[in-house]
Amino acid sequence: MAEAKYDVLAIGNAIFDVLVRADEKFLVDHGMTKGSMTLIDEVRAAAIYRDMGPATQMSGGSAANTIVGVASFGGRAAYVGKVKQDQIGGLYTHDIRAAGVAFDTRPATGGPATGCSYILITGDGERTMNTYLGAAQDLTPDDIEPAAIAASRIVYLEGYLWDPKNAKDAFVKAATIAHGAGREVALTLSDSFCVDRYRGEFLELMRERTVDLVFANEAELHSLYQTSDFDAALAQLRKDVKLAVVTRSEKGCMVASNDGVVAVPAFSIERLVDTTGAGDLFASGFLFGLVRNAGFENAARLGALAAAEVIQHIGARPQISLKELAKQNGLPV
Amino acid sequence: MAEAKYDVLAIGNAIFDVLVRADEKFLVDHGMTKGSMTLIDEVRAAAIYRDMGPATQMSGGSAANTIVGVASFGGRAAYVGKVKQDQIGGLYTHDIRAAGVAFDTRPATGGPATGCSYILITGDGERTMNTYLGAAQDLTPDDIEPAAIAASRIVYLEGYLWDPKNAKDAFVKAATIAHGAGREVALTLSDSFCVDRYRGEFLELMRERTVDLVFANEAELHSLYQTSDFDAALAQLRKDVKLAVVTRSEKGCMVASNDGVVAVPAFSIERLVDTTGAGDLFASGFLFGLVRNAGFENAARLGALAAAEVIQHIGARPQISLKELAKQNGLPV
Repeated sequence: MAEAKYDVLAIGNAIFDVLVRADEKFLVDHGMTKGSMTLIDEVRAAAIYRDMGPATQMSGGSAANTIVGVASFGGRAAYVGKVKQDQIGGLYTHDIRAAGVAFDTRPATGGPATGCSYILITGDGERTMNTYLGAAQDLTPDDIEPAAIAASRIVYLEGYLWDPKNAKDAFVKAATIAHGAGREVALTLSDSFCVDRYRGEFLELMRERTVDLVFANEAELHSLYQTSDFDAALAQLRKDVKLAVVTRSEKGCMVASNDGVVAVPAFSIERLVDTTGAGDLFASGFLFGLVRNAGFENAARLGALAAAEVIQHIGARPQISLKELAKQNGLPV
Repeated sequence: MAEAKYDVLAIGNAIFDVLVRADEKFLVDHGMTKGSMTLIDEVRAAAIYRDMGPATQMSGGSAANTIVGVASFGGRAAYVGKVKQDQIGGLYTHDIRAAGVAFDTRPATGGPATGCSYILITGDGERTMNTYLGAAQDLTPDDIEPAAIAASRIVYLEGYLWDPKNAKDAFVKAATIAHGAGREVALTLSDSFCVDRYRGEFLELMRERTVDLVFANEAELHSLYQTSDFDAALAQLRKDVKLAVVTRSEKGCMVASNDGVVAVPAFSIERLVDTTGAGDLFASGFLFGLVRNAGFENAARLGALAAAEVIQHIGARPQISLKELAKQNGLPV
């Protein structure tokens, strides 16, 4: 197998985050399901935005947040995602490249604007996302560069890619190239409602070994197997995929592999500010640990550390060097 | 005099802030003067942005930050400033309106993009601003609505308005209308290099009573009178303007009026994160105190409180209700 150029290449919906604090009443009045990601059209986006308070804007997108975290740990990182060639697309492109991530997907020159997520952060730190996919709709298999995929040790894909119309073909193309080159393929289930929309297809991806590693949180796991029995769901997950990590917020995570199941605690935090990006950054640390052969337990601890950093401030991208943070906490980087 | 519709109407350069942490070396390597606001053209903006790290984006602009603070205290507030009808102009317009500020200036449909400031925040919390004026260049006297000006108890203007080519005419028009309606006119000197560029004109505005109230920090005061003698400069300032407030960072401020000079201490803070907006938010509190007839000392304390809030997080807009904060601190609102 050729020397890898990238440790991780991530593919996802490129989404600009518009973050605002809101009270519970705002969610109720606007018919939002707290903690979820809901797809919205342009009309609904305008209506929500009109009612929202003053915002903070930052680049986001689930897999993009993850890959920025991988780069922050010191990993060699690349991203594939579609923005439009507009002002917000320009900000987005700057931010991900400035984070040290290779990003060469050709921006759309026509069609809808760069995608945005209107993220309401309630007093308990929970985030509720309303996502207008915009240009992310236009990611196609043509955006997958075989050479870049084959040169990446892990290809990481988000379940949200099932929402835009052509992205799943890009997903499958990337997974096929990766496996053909002897690489690994990882998937995050993204959101419990997303799992509900694509349960059968996600299970097929796992059972047909299109993916080697699955990230899920508890809600996504329960949704995947339509059961409230955590142990039963975990047992089924172990049958369906080679390696799985189930994140459980402050309860830490479980790493399930052929070797058995390892539980790793969460890092303690001073103050929960905004959960946006918690799962994304957990994946950053775990993936980085894997490519550094740190072992599942250390990989999970790196994930927990990155998640702890990102939930203590507004926004889904790390504000400090995760490499330095890991060193300070005696973890291998 | 007719009942006022607005407590404060602010006029300034509408600027979108692109904030990033940087080290001192970045400033040196890019020939930046730490703590200053430097005007840049589009080419330099692109060069600085290319080299900058991942950013956080928020609406800014000095007088706009001030008026958002006035609204956060519960004041009736309006803003005049020029954005372009582009994506960033849309974000800008949303944010200021969502803060409760009336904002009806017609956006430019052609010409340069909405202005941006590339703000480098160093480890000591100091901010260094590189501002591309963009559409703010296109503010003209036509943008001044006489009825809105006449209906505002205080018209607040930023010294930065001397930089765009037509804005000073808008400034003078607004001041003339305000005085004709029996209203007060306030000016912030904005930046010591700005004072250096327009010293003679600023002194003339004061000496000809075009402005009634001047805000300055120490560096601006020293620049205005080209002296390092603080007491001499303050004495001269008292001769030149009816009411003046000199802010001195952690040393608090001095309010100079016909009644004498009152020193008011700064509020203590837990951690200095980012000084962006400190002077702007001081002005919010002081202006709000004035229109509520709170007295100079209480007005200065409201200013100090708002400044303390804004320097403890990234960005120049308050993150919590200043009205609530003032109540918690036993100040009149």
